[in-house]
Amino acid sequence: MESAVTEPKAAGPVDLTEPHLRETLAMAGLDVEYVRAEHNTLYYLDENGEEVPVVDFTGGYGSLLLGHNNSQIVARAREALDGQVPVHAQFAPSSHANAVAFRLNEILRRELGSDEPYFAIFANSGAEAIEAAVKHAELDRVMRAGVLAAQLAAHAEQARAAVSAGTAEVTAGALAQLGLKEGGVAELLAEAERRNAEQMARPPVFLALEGGFHGKLMGSVQLTHNPGFRTPFSALATQARFIPLGRRGAVGEALAAERAVVFDIVVDGSEVRVAERDLPVVCALLVEPIQGEGGIVEVSRELAEEIGRECQAAGCPVIVDEIQSGMGRTGSFLASSSLGLRGDYYTLAKSLGGGIAKNSVMLVRQSRYRREFEMVHSSTFAKDAFSSLIAQKVLDILEADGGQVYRLATERGNKLKSVLLALREEFPGVVKDVRGRGLMLGLEFTDQTSAPSETFRGFAQAGILGYALAGYLLKRHRVRTFPTASAVSTLRFEPSVYVSDAEIDQLAAALRALCEILRDQDEARFFGS
Amino acid sequence: MESAVTEPKAAGPVDLTEPHLRETLAMAGLDVEYVRAEHNTLYYLDENGEEVPVVDFTGGYGSLLLGHNNSQIVARAREALDGQVPVHAQFAPSSHANAVAFRLNEILRRELGSDEPYFAIFANSGAEAIEAAVKHAELDRVMRAGVLAAQLAAHAEQARAAVSAGTAEVTAGALAQLGLKEGGVAELLAEAERRNAEQMARPPVFLALEGGFHGKLMGSVQLTHNPGFRTPFSALATQARFIPLGRRGAVGEALAAERAVVFDIVVDGSEVRVAERDLPVVCALLVEPIQGEGGIVEVSRELAEEIGRECQAAGCPVIVDEIQSGMGRTGSFLASSSLGLRGDYYTLAKSLGGGIAKNSVMLVRQSRYRREFEMVHSSTFAKDAFSSLIAQKVLDILEADGGQVYRLATERGNKLKSVLLALREEFPGVVKDVRGRGLMLGLEFTDQTSAPSETFRGFAQAGILGYALAGYLLKRHRVRTFPTASAVSTLRFEPSVYVSDAEIDQLAAALRALCEILRDQDEARFFGS
Repeated sequence: MESAVTEPKAAGPVDLTEPHLRETLAMAGLDVEYVRAEHNTLYYLDENGEEVPVVDFTGGYGSLLLGHNNSQIVARAREALDGQVPVHAQFAPSSHANAVAFRLNEILRRELGSDEPYFAIFANSGAEAIEAAVKHAELDRVMRAGVLAAQLAAHAEQARAAVSAGTAEVTAGALAQLGLKEGGVAELLAEAERRNAEQMARPPVFLALEGGFHGKLMGSVQLTHNPGFRTPFSALATQARFIPLGRRGAVGEALAAERAVVFDIVVDGSEVRVAERDLPVVCALLVEPIQGEGGIVEVSRELAEEIGRECQAAGCPVIVDEIQSGMGRTGSFLASSSLGLRGDYYTLAKSLGGGIAKNSVMLVRQSRYRREFEMVHSSTFAKDAFSSLIAQKVLDILEADGGQVYRLATERGNKLKSVLLALREEFPGVVKDVRGRGLMLGLEFTDQTSAPSETFRGFAQAGILGYALAGYLLKRHRVRTFPTASAVSTLRFEPSVYVSDAEIDQLAAALRALCEILRDQDEARFFGS
Repeated sequence: MESAVTEPKAAGPVDLTEPHLRETLAMAGLDVEYVRAEHNTLYYLDENGEEVPVVDFTGGYGSLLLGHNNSQIVARAREALDGQVPVHAQFAPSSHANAVAFRLNEILRRELGSDEPYFAIFANSGAEAIEAAVKHAELDRVMRAGVLAAQLAAHAEQARAAVSAGTAEVTAGALAQLGLKEGGVAELLAEAERRNAEQMARPPVFLALEGGFHGKLMGSVQLTHNPGFRTPFSALATQARFIPLGRRGAVGEALAAERAVVFDIVVDGSEVRVAERDLPVVCALLVEPIQGEGGIVEVSRELAEEIGRECQAAGCPVIVDEIQSGMGRTGSFLASSSLGLRGDYYTLAKSLGGGIAKNSVMLVRQSRYRREFEMVHSSTFAKDAFSSLIAQKVLDILEADGGQVYRLATERGNKLKSVLLALREEFPGVVKDVRGRGLMLGLEFTDQTSAPSETFRGFAQAGILGYALAGYLLKRHRVRTFPTASAVSTLRFEPSVYVSDAEIDQLAAALRALCEILRDQDEARFFGS
């Protein structure tokens, strides 16, 4: 080990990288800097310079399904460096990236039971993959609207010509349909054009789910429901319409509310008629099969079915955000495939980088694919050989031995979940809910805003209970977890598939102690005195 | 070397990663896949499996100032892997990232001659750094507008109370100022509130320069001038107002045109008066000191001075986009510092990743910094130890030996530029212009849309002349360059500082041959027959 790498450099007199965040972490006892990481363990140095192990259940916010510094992935990274692969060879064919796309397609074919290929656009982060998917969906929408507009214009010309030639005439019914009492084809066309132009000028609409999280860039943050993250920036980009998770029919209602109709003036035999045509206004619906930052909340089969049915009927593309839930975390490659939800788009990131590289991909099905997108979208860092070679290795590991990693995710997840469920059973006044699937689990604590203990009440009222509890687990039990970003009373558990029985036992003991503390409102024990 | 790494995997029957782009590259003869890269050289395999070297003047679109697979940087990457650094330890202090921020501040202090620190927000790509800067500027704008709104409300309350207490009264002049003929304090306040609400509801405005390029994400693509990249997505996010480069006074005009005023009803002695206050509507002005994708176009000293002066007067923050021009490429760390332009924000990326990692950073000066930003912005992949350690090494190399890399950039750049200038001298009918500084150079060809040769005329008319010429240079001379994205008759030259005399000579010979071909409109020679 080399000192420049393992010994953190002195930060100097002032912290210039998010000092306020660091202070906030310090208040919760979470300001521990880690110096080494392996498997499920992060190490910090104690005052004697000795490594202290911490079991990591945060798992890089979902990026470490294969653990910290997985030896096979590290070996692949070294090979890439040793082989002097061209990391920067933009605008050249990239068989390494293409191999990743092929492997992803093999897996999708199996899980979706469909031969339709998905084209791949690579990016550098989950948020960038979302932005690419939305940009593609918008290009597609604009092009579809353009085709429709051209058809309307051609039909208008035909109608004008037919009336002029005396082979067709405008009926009173057609005029009435557009609210006109009298007039000829010129008036009818003018009114249709006026109304159509109004509709065509409508901005696109995004549908997303309440509680959803899709990133924090200028556009993607608008699709992220959490008002704290979103509203300061709401003037920057198009807003989303958020759909409640629990109400049946809400998807259909939202699509109906945003439906836009334009008028097509057509010649039908000897009559000039008015036909209604749907104008594509809804750009896409975004859905996480299991909401991560929203508190590990699974989309129900019913909602998944409703999304599929209603969006297909409305011609609205579905972007399935598998950034946190995908890559095998829940026991299948896609969490959505076991819900029967088929996406027009998928986004993947996190573990695609193997815990070392930064990689993400947006997949779009062939029937939706617009090749024009390739000419208007690009990124200097994306589609590079280094991260592609690592992604290949990640997929190789996932698919090895007939999908041993998927089975492990299910088996380890079940074991971990049974621990959490037992706590809920034993501490019904403390544990409100246990949610999730595979290695994407959440434990929600009961509301402590009226708790007898001033400490816990204070944390809860300040919205930082989850952080305070995470601080206790770290300091007293050397277990690392964090609340989910938008549901701060829910702790997340997203360890790697290599999480051991002993590590799960360590977490169980830690959580049991915490539950006892909350049950007894035992501040003294919480603060370790 | 390991076969999985050096031998590209078979792509299978269909290309799933941008097949249309690949076809387009193939038409220009640019569909060459590289298998290895070192220094300034990319290698492809010929039909016998032998490596064929290509001198790389594209330089990863500006990411390879230190060359492909720089041995010191590769060694640092290996150390990071060997040391098992915690790549994913989000929401923990990160001294590696902080060390990068400190080093950047040392360099900025020297170049800007100011002690004011810049805080660092890390991201994963250049576009993400732009989005972070704009988000921060918007948060700052919204907070400043909020403070102003609170002041107006407090003053309104004071006015109401003073009139009610009989200590002040509304003058006719005040009423007239808001277009009222009569009324009391209630009417005056109501009218001010109505007018102010209208102004407060205005969306933010971005100012950017014509020809500018700031990325291709949903928000950042709106700031990128090229209509081909931008307009299909214009409904997705707030638009920018573009300022022409060549017209004196244009910055002040744009700021004046977007100036918004609100009315502050204040008690002044015994009178209630109307004061005008500036409402911050312009979120930021974005500027590249040397436009990269716009055709290697330097911002003039006059424009830089105007931007600094006008933006300071208007309180408008300046985001200096140094993503392509920065990191030493032009002979100083920042290309803007030698223009006397001081940014409220700087964005850096490209070579910050050392040609291996993906890293970017947005720097914001202390006097503008909003600590609240840390609580609303984050990224799973950002601020990681792997890319931070590499960035440290990059900065170490740049700063070593008293800035030897900066001197090399100047010296090599001058040598390269003299070659290009000599060609302009010799082929005035072919070479229209040579632009740029240090190792950020461009050569613009004359308009060929009316060329005698049908081939060159056709390429030019289709807007692909630059790609066709790049294809010739690659196929016939083993020199890699590309046109700039938005000025496609300009070829870019952005090699590493280690570019040798022999490599420059090879480029000179290749460009001379190309110039002769264009001068003679010699299609046969162009196609190699």
